[in-house]
Amino acid sequence: MFRAYDKTGDISYTLGAFPTMELVGRRPCDVVAVALHSRFRMTKEAEEILSPVADKVYVSDRDVERVAKKGNTFVVGAFRKRYAPFAAETHVTLVRPSDAGNLGTIMRTMLGFGVRRLAVVGESADVYDPRTVRASMGAIFALDISLFPSWEDYAVAHTEHKYLFMLDGRSAPLGTTPGVEPCAYVFGNEGAGLPPELADCGTPVVIPHSRDIDSLNLPQAVAIGLYEFTKAKFN
Amino acid sequence: MFRAYDKTGDISYTLGAFPTMELVGRRPCDVVAVALHSRFRMTKEAEEILSPVADKVYVSDRDVERVAKKGNTFVVGAFRKRYAPFAAETHVTLVRPSDAGNLGTIMRTMLGFGVRRLAVVGESADVYDPRTVRASMGAIFALDISLFPSWEDYAVAHTEHKYLFMLDGRSAPLGTTPGVEPCAYVFGNEGAGLPPELADCGTPVVIPHSRDIDSLNLPQAVAIGLYEFTKAKFN
Repeated sequence: MFRAYDKTGDISYTLGAFPTMELVGRRPCDVVAVALHSRFRMTKEAEEILSPVADKVYVSDRDVERVAKKGNTFVVGAFRKRYAPFAAETHVTLVRPSDAGNLGTIMRTMLGFGVRRLAVVGESADVYDPRTVRASMGAIFALDISLFPSWEDYAVAHTEHKYLFMLDGRSAPLGTTPGVEPCAYVFGNEGAGLPPELADCGTPVVIPHSRDIDSLNLPQAVAIGLYEFTKAKFN
Repeated sequence: MFRAYDKTGDISYTLGAFPTMELVGRRPCDVVAVALHSRFRMTKEAEEILSPVADKVYVSDRDVERVAKKGNTFVVGAFRKRYAPFAAETHVTLVRPSDAGNLGTIMRTMLGFGVRRLAVVGESADVYDPRTVRASMGAIFALDISLFPSWEDYAVAHTEHKYLFMLDGRSAPLGTTPGVEPCAYVFGNEGAGLPPELADCGTPVVIPHSRDIDSLNLPQAVAIGLYEFTKAKFN
């Protein structure tokens, strides 16, 4: 059942104990199997967390090693990928993100700021790549994720007010625009950013920074944007 | 001359054209050599950037491959590591950071927010690891970096006001404390954070976030902190 990850398939994997426990805790119904390496040391706590899927847990060094190429991973979970359309709710939109690790980091940051819905638009890194799952530290299992083939498809489905993070000359500095909810926080590709014409789709926003760099890294930009728009909630 | 990177040595490497050009542009005197792969395609622009060190540029597939283990790197720069003590100036302090990639990402973010001095305290990831250099996208060459074996050594050398990013119960929410300059923005280790007793050394500050995560990733926390404290400057 365990095989090298195939992005076109319905199954992905959690590598390591922490994300596997997050998977089982948050999405027990999506668990297909949990493979343990014979070197895995079962604790009382782990046994309790795994109990809802106890009939799907088994020991197989070969299955663990087939999926986790690194030698120090002793638990692997196999789970069904799940996509969940969401209604008019506050969310993050990533347009053509290209890096699986960045996607996972962003998912964790979103959970940190209480934004639990993610739209991914256009040709993008695979949101269920095991590297994404690992970088999210399990946060992926707390989010609703929806994919759209193009901006047009997305814009038809989601008419929430949009804050477009871009370097456009008309952009308002972050923190100077009132926050409207529900809304979408929209970020572009790591290299290319958002296409300039999207500035007309909502409120273009820029994160003030020095001229010594072209732009902030994408996960940093998302973190700063969500922090600024949500800080009143968590104070 | 090119050999596998040794963290105890005086030499480190830039992998790839972009960081190598940043090295040559910002620190020509620190350049020991620039090795080009025979598959590197020289452009007019690259030739101009490399001109200050033209006598140190040569073609050697073997030297490139010895340092850059990935097959798609065609330029490698060798440079002398440089540490620079700095006077009472605004800086970032990282206490026991453990991840080389995070260090580089943080350096780039610092440059983005105009904070060009970095103190690294205690047993830490290697600030000149080629992975750090790569993740910094050359920003490392724009910073003054100073290492301190312990917090005590650091505190004697730097008496600037300190903002300590920590989850301590007494911490003020970020954005609610006045900014004093010069100052130090102090962040702890990825897993452990700052030791609680440091709260007495300055103003403890917390980044408001949800309870669904234990803490923000370190590079995200630094980005948010620097954004908040510097935003008035870049608006």
